[in-house]
Amino acid sequence: MCELLAMSANIPTDIVFSFTGLAERGGVTGPHVDGWGITFYEGKGSRTFKDAAPSSRSQVARLIKSYPIKSEVVISHIRQANRGKVSLENTHPFTRELWGRYWTYAHNGQLTGYQDKFVTRRYQSVGETDSEQAFCWILESLVAKFGEQEPADMMPVFEYIAALAEQIRQLGVFNMILSDGRYLMNFCSNNLCYITRRAPFGTAKLIDTDVVIDFHQETTPNDVVTVVATRPLTDNEQWQVLQPGDWKLFCLGELRLSGSTAELHLL
Amino acid sequence: MCELLAMSANIPTDIVFSFTGLAERGGVTGPHVDGWGITFYEGKGSRTFKDAAPSSRSQVARLIKSYPIKSEVVISHIRQANRGKVSLENTHPFTRELWGRYWTYAHNGQLTGYQDKFVTRRYQSVGETDSEQAFCWILESLVAKFGEQEPADMMPVFEYIAALAEQIRQLGVFNMILSDGRYLMNFCSNNLCYITRRAPFGTAKLIDTDVVIDFHQETTPNDVVTVVATRPLTDNEQWQVLQPGDWKLFCLGELRLSGSTAELHLL
Repeated sequence: MCELLAMSANIPTDIVFSFTGLAERGGVTGPHVDGWGITFYEGKGSRTFKDAAPSSRSQVARLIKSYPIKSEVVISHIRQANRGKVSLENTHPFTRELWGRYWTYAHNGQLTGYQDKFVTRRYQSVGETDSEQAFCWILESLVAKFGEQEPADMMPVFEYIAALAEQIRQLGVFNMILSDGRYLMNFCSNNLCYITRRAPFGTAKLIDTDVVIDFHQETTPNDVVTVVATRPLTDNEQWQVLQPGDWKLFCLGELRLSGSTAELHLL
Repeated sequence: MCELLAMSANIPTDIVFSFTGLAERGGVTGPHVDGWGITFYEGKGSRTFKDAAPSSRSQVARLIKSYPIKSEVVISHIRQANRGKVSLENTHPFTRELWGRYWTYAHNGQLTGYQDKFVTRRYQSVGETDSEQAFCWILESLVAKFGEQEPADMMPVFEYIAALAEQIRQLGVFNMILSDGRYLMNFCSNNLCYITRRAPFGTAKLIDTDVVIDFHQETTPNDVVTVVATRPLTDNEQWQVLQPGDWKLFCLGELRLSGSTAELHLL
């Protein structure tokens, strides 16, 4: 399996604290030694740092832990390989352009019998993972349903992605984080939680390494920052745990839309 | 204008030496302070490091200069903005997936009157540069001509890209480097040169900063490494200068195909 981490904030915020906790799981407090990656959006632009080396020992990860890149949306993943060899092309997050935006995605879980279902032409996998092929299929399905131009209202797009994610979940375990640079969407198969931090800010203590942060020192009263992870990263805060089929859509740190695919089935 | 740097090698090779010279042009020996980026291919995978900060002062550039990433194909660019604001989404290289490979591209020059010509649907620009739009148009044209599956013979693909590049060159200055991870293609509008290093290896001395390298110490007798740049990076070696309309295709360090668009017009 793998670990996921994501952030949505209403002001460019660095994720050094949370990433420091996550990176420990890549070889120190967790077994996820088969590469890692992190995507930072800065406006419409994005940049991804990746390494096939374990995050706890990676020189690139050391940079990320020491260099506070300010971002409104972040997606990160550390990998324990199940499908596909340990290599850069199999390392999450994956990015593709759709509607003039970079879409970025990472997956925790494993799928079976997906090859016949996820047939794509326009978006093709570069690596060999079930994860990337599912992402290509989601994007291809969006083009098929909504066409070549970005819809004015993006809410139906994310509702449709939830319906697609529910179909993917039938093939195994599918915890997903996905963003177009504005919205951060999470879909829970069995393992996803989040916390929204806002004033009055307190201190937080990482589970995976001996680091404490006082957010009050690092923030302004108007900041709203949501962090999503497969497992809580701190042990002195209340994380919201998602149930199977739950999905949440955040924008600028705030919850914008949510649902469960059980509800969707009623529509 | 900007500076381009690229490498093609028959063995994973680091580009620390050449990048050290190029990065000086981003604020020390050159005026290209509006961001920089570098893409490393490792197998089919690729990773891009980008920064909107000048390369001579960037913390990310410092990592690249100290951390030898071994790669068979590298594409790099430092920017002096002419079209599009200084921001991450306008920073080269640009990457898109086509035929299950990541295609990466960087451009030196400036184009006018391109908006009507480079109309695309499938590949859309994220930023506002003429460069990215030309790249999207090239990829869209490849799909239109060759279809959804990668051709078995890639040589007609690169010949067609040369013909497209010639059309783009009519709109201004278009020095280009482009790769699918196997092949490295260069198209010269007015400013491109290259050098192929092979045994017996000698020493090389950077023009832009006081660094000398003895390649003999860093290589094996079978290594073949081609470096492409807008201007020579060393002053004690013989760089091959391309003429307007010249294009070269390298694979594993060796020249695989070349032509000039004047010749193409005769076909």
